[in-house]
Order: sequence, then structure tokens, then C-alpha cells
Amino acid sequence: MVHTYRQTITTTGQGDVHDVTGVAAGAVSQSGLRSGIVTVFAVGSTAGITTLEFESGVVADLDRALESLAPRHGEYQHHLRWHDDNGSSHVRAALIGPSVSVPLVDGRMVLGTWQQIALVELDTSGRQREVVVQVMGE
Amino acid sequence: MVHTYRQTITTTGQGDVHDVTGVAAGAVSQSGLRSGIVTVFAVGSTAGITTLEFESGVVADLDRALESLAPRHGEYQHHLRWHDDNGSSHVRAALIGPSVSVPLVDGRMVLGTWQQIALVELDTSGRQREVVVQVMGE
Amino acid sequence: MVHTYRQTITTTGQGDVHDVTGVAAGAVSQSGLRSGIVTVFAVGSTAGITTLEFESGVVADLDRALESLAPRHGEYQHHLRWHDDNGSSHVRAALIGPSVSVPLVDGRMVLGTWQQIALVELDTSGRQREVVVQVMGE
Repeated sequence: MVHTYRQTITTTGQGDVHDVTGVAAGAVSQSGLRSGIVTVFAVGSTAGITTLEFESGVVADLDRALESLAPRHGEYQHHLRWHDDNGSSHVRAALIGPSVSVPLVDGRMVLGTWQQIALVELDTSGRQREVVVQVMGE
Repeated sequence: MVHTYRQTITTTGQGDVHDVTGVAAGAVSQSGLRSGIVTVFAVGSTAGITTLEFESGVVADLDRALESLAPRHGEYQHHLRWHDDNGSSHVRAALIGPSVSVPLVDGRMVLGTWQQIALVELDTSGRQREVVVQVMGE
Repeated sequence: MVHTYRQTITTTGQGDVHDVTGVAAGAVSQSGLRSGIVTVFAVGSTAGITTLEFESGVVADLDRALESLAPRHGEYQHHLRWHDDNGSSHVRAALIGPSVSVPLVDGRMVLGTWQQIALVELDTSGRQREVVVQVMGE
């Protein structure tokens, strides 16, 4: 049994993080499934999905670490080739990854109390981001 | 068909890594399933799951790289807001991610010979960590 | 319903990235499944799977960021213990992770237009890499 749910989220650009736990929980509820896997996936190559404690301090700290790893205003081959400005976005997204899979047990995702599923916008400008939640199980 | 297995693991704090391949293999064995996906998930926002060669050199090297990316004694907005000391833990956990999905084929996970499933403790003090293994398939 | 597909890919060493979207799409096509999850997994502890825009600029930029995080010619405990030279490979692989899960909807993976599934070789020499694609659904 598979249930698909899609949600579009308007983001403001690099460093913008959205808590999509409620989106995933809503998909679980609609599916009627009690046990299985909930896969949350960000469509596109300049965003990521992970889990984190969704509070503004952690969100800022993550952005700062990513800035040290792939500075927004650094030099990128991607810029030279495509006259684009989002080389940092591509590097960051490849590292965070596009998907998280959360076990569904007794009708609930087994997240920790302070563990939220997060859409991390990494592009340099805002986007209409599509998040796909796939609930599979029984 | 879905089979859930939960295991609590006592950790000693940041840099402590546990090989949970045996936990996952035990869950597979109990499930009786032969083919599908094994999802291993760390509950909480300051731990991660990945695969690595589980030997003390790699474990130390990973910790050092994470220290350069998110220094334990660095300054974090999370500390200022919550008078906490684990900002580095949150950043590291968001980057490693909470889950890994391993194909199950002919009753075995398709891991490489030196590829173990690892619970990476990232918090600054030890925890009772819950790892959930979800075996789904046929 | 589970369908397994294995593909061996010859890589040239650290920084070599292969677009395996077609491999995954071929597995989907062979499976006949229309809805579910496609899990792509790299066997071994010195390679990773992620999604990225597969163009040579992004590939070079990712390699450079990984070099800053875990320099190829840095000092590693793994080298001291095993007289090996791929400590950087192990650290990079643990961060990128071995698997990606992509929702399958109406017979297609929900990837973005410029979002490809990528096998990232991280070892210091070339390998015969095995990628396993597990298509599960209905």
C-alpha cells in the first residue's frame, strides 16, 4: 500500500528552513497506514531534507557551518560554466541529501521530541519547492 | 510485510560510534523477510546514522573532520538561546542525517565487506539512544 | 512487490562522479511497478550516493569542498593503523552517505529536471563499484 502526498512550499532563499513534520504527519493520517516507512523527498538539486531541532538558533548555526564549507560568494566552476550564482547551493545540497526515511510504527513516525523533519532551502533565491511524502506500508 | 525492531544503546558522548549492523541483521533474521528494504533510524536530533568501515582510525578521523566543520567549543546561536552546550551536535547531526536504507536481497543486506551501519553519537554527553530498524518487504 | 537490479560501474578514483539515474530508471521500467520507493545504494565504505545537477562544474565544486573538509593528503589515523592512503575517502563517504530513496509516482521517479542520482567515487584509486537499485511498491 502506497500513499503519495505533495506539498508546495514557498521559500525565501539560502538558509531558509521549513518544518515539514506536519506535512508528513498529515500524509500519514490521510493514508490510514499504521506501519511502514515515510519517505520525505525534496524535488530539485538545490534543496535538502534532514531532521533537526527546528528552532532559529540551530537553523542559523547550520547555515554558518555550510557557509564555511561552501561559501555563498566563493568561486565555483558552476558559475564559470553557466553564469549562475548558486554553486554553493549545489555543493550544500549534495552533502545534506534530498531524502529522509522515517519508520512508521503504530500510526506514528518514530521521531524524537525535538526532532523535526526539515526542508532546507539552499538556493540563492526563493523557490516554490515541492516536497513529496511517500507513505508505504500496511 | 513490516517488522519493527527497537534497540537502546548507551553512548558516552560526542565521537562515540557504535556498529549497529548486528542489530539490523538480527531484525532481518527475526522478520523472516528475504527481500525489501532495511531502514535504520536514530531517534533524536543529536545523533546520526551512516555507513563506514568500523575501526577506531576511521572513527577518530570522522570526529576530527566534524570538529573542523562544527567545533565543539565554538560559538552557537543555539547556546545563546537555550543556555545549552550542544550546538556542534545539532549541526553535525543535520549533516550526517538520521537514516540509512539498505536493500535486502536473498535474506541479506547488500553491505560491502568493510561497510558497517553506524550509530554516530554527536551530543556532548552520553545518552540512552534509541535505534529503530524497520524491515519492509516480502 | 520488490525488484532488485545490480549494476557494476568502473570508476577512476576520488572525484569521479557517475550519473546513475538511467540505471535506476531502467530498474523501474523492468520492475513494472508504478508507485513506491526506489532506493539506490552504493556497496562499500568509500563511495556515496546523493542527488545533484550532473554537470562538470558542480562535480568539480563538490570535490573541492570535500577536499577542504577531508584533504586527500592530510594525516589520518586510518593511515597509521592500516598503512592505507584513503582516510579522506572514508570521512567523505560517511558524510555523503550510501543511499538515497526516491518516491516513485505514476511509474516515474519524482526527480527535478536538473536533479540526477549520482554515484560519487571517493576512494583514492578506481574501483569496480556495485550499485544496487531496489524498487519496492505496487
